[in-house]
Amino acid sequence: MNSKDASREILWAGGFLDVVRINRWEFVRRKNITGIVGIVPVTDDGKLVLLEQYRPPIGGKVIELPAGLVGDIPGKQAEPLEEAARRELYEETGYEADRMEVLFEGCVTPGLCDETITFFLATGLRKTAAGGGDETEDIVVHDIPLGAVMDFLGQQSRKGNLIDLKVYSALFFLQREIGEREEA
Amino acid sequence: MNSKDASREILWAGGFLDVVRINRWEFVRRKNITGIVGIVPVTDDGKLVLLEQYRPPIGGKVIELPAGLVGDIPGKQAEPLEEAARRELYEETGYEADRMEVLFEGCVTPGLCDETITFFLATGLRKTAAGGGDETEDIVVHDIPLGAVMDFLGQQSRKGNLIDLKVYSALFFLQREIGEREEA
Repeated sequence: MNSKDASREILWAGGFLDVVRINRWEFVRRKNITGIVGIVPVTDDGKLVLLEQYRPPIGGKVIELPAGLVGDIPGKQAEPLEEAARRELYEETGYEADRMEVLFEGCVTPGLCDETITFFLATGLRKTAAGGGDETEDIVVHDIPLGAVMDFLGQQSRKGNLIDLKVYSALFFLQREIGEREEA
Repeated sequence: MNSKDASREILWAGGFLDVVRINRWEFVRRKNITGIVGIVPVTDDGKLVLLEQYRPPIGGKVIELPAGLVGDIPGKQAEPLEEAARRELYEETGYEADRMEVLFEGCVTPGLCDETITFFLATGLRKTAAGGGDETEDIVVHDIPLGAVMDFLGQQSRKGNLIDLKVYSALFFLQREIGEREEA
């Protein structure tokens, strides 16, 4: 805790979130988690695996990458990030991955929330289940050729679906990966 | 409001945030705003303008793009997005821009918050003030040549600063812009 944060105070405690105040700054903290993982799944034939799901906070559908909380499952609080990423990938898309490697990490809304996300590149994919999420989720899986992703996102926008900006972060790193592999 | 959202309930109302529940989903909503803008400022000599600022929710420093809330200033509730983006750019970096154009938009944490952000590419920049934010902000401005941004971000990570993932989203779109201009 920074010395600037001496006045930290919990304003409200919910089931999944706390609202905290530091000086005049109100923000939220997710409860009972040890991390957040995202997955950038790319199939052997060069398709990016994206999700379309209804998000209550937005009140509409969002195109995004597979992702999930870590440490929130009773009995699995010590689950490593990579294992959680494999679990979320399988639950949401039905894919299992031969290789998982950290691709990038950082924060997404540092004025509002303490959360940081670690993204794994998942390759060597095998589809072994239907995916679609757990019983609380309603997910459609889209496997889109990398060269057609921007057209797909444009179509989704025109339908009124929102794009999660982390999809573009992933595309930036995928382009770098492809560039480095072509140079090697 | 979607019919799935019939059970919407405000669990807690703060000064800047509300906590809302829809069915079992807890999330936050920023109060009294009409939008959020981000800015991707690129100088005539090819430098990306980034901010380094202490963020209370993170408890540390974050490297990020200029950004801010829209409609939260008394008497300016109807401020257009572009005007708000120009205001935030000037307050935070001291730059004024000849040209502002929408570069991309979307959501950042759709499981947690209703917020969406519209990013403007700001070009034709003139430095007419020091920047550094308003009296509540403590901002250092970094002008980094586009080709050196990834090295800079690596250095900042090694110092323990976090990177806001929206920086990578912006780099993706800047690469596309540069590619398109070279093809034209």
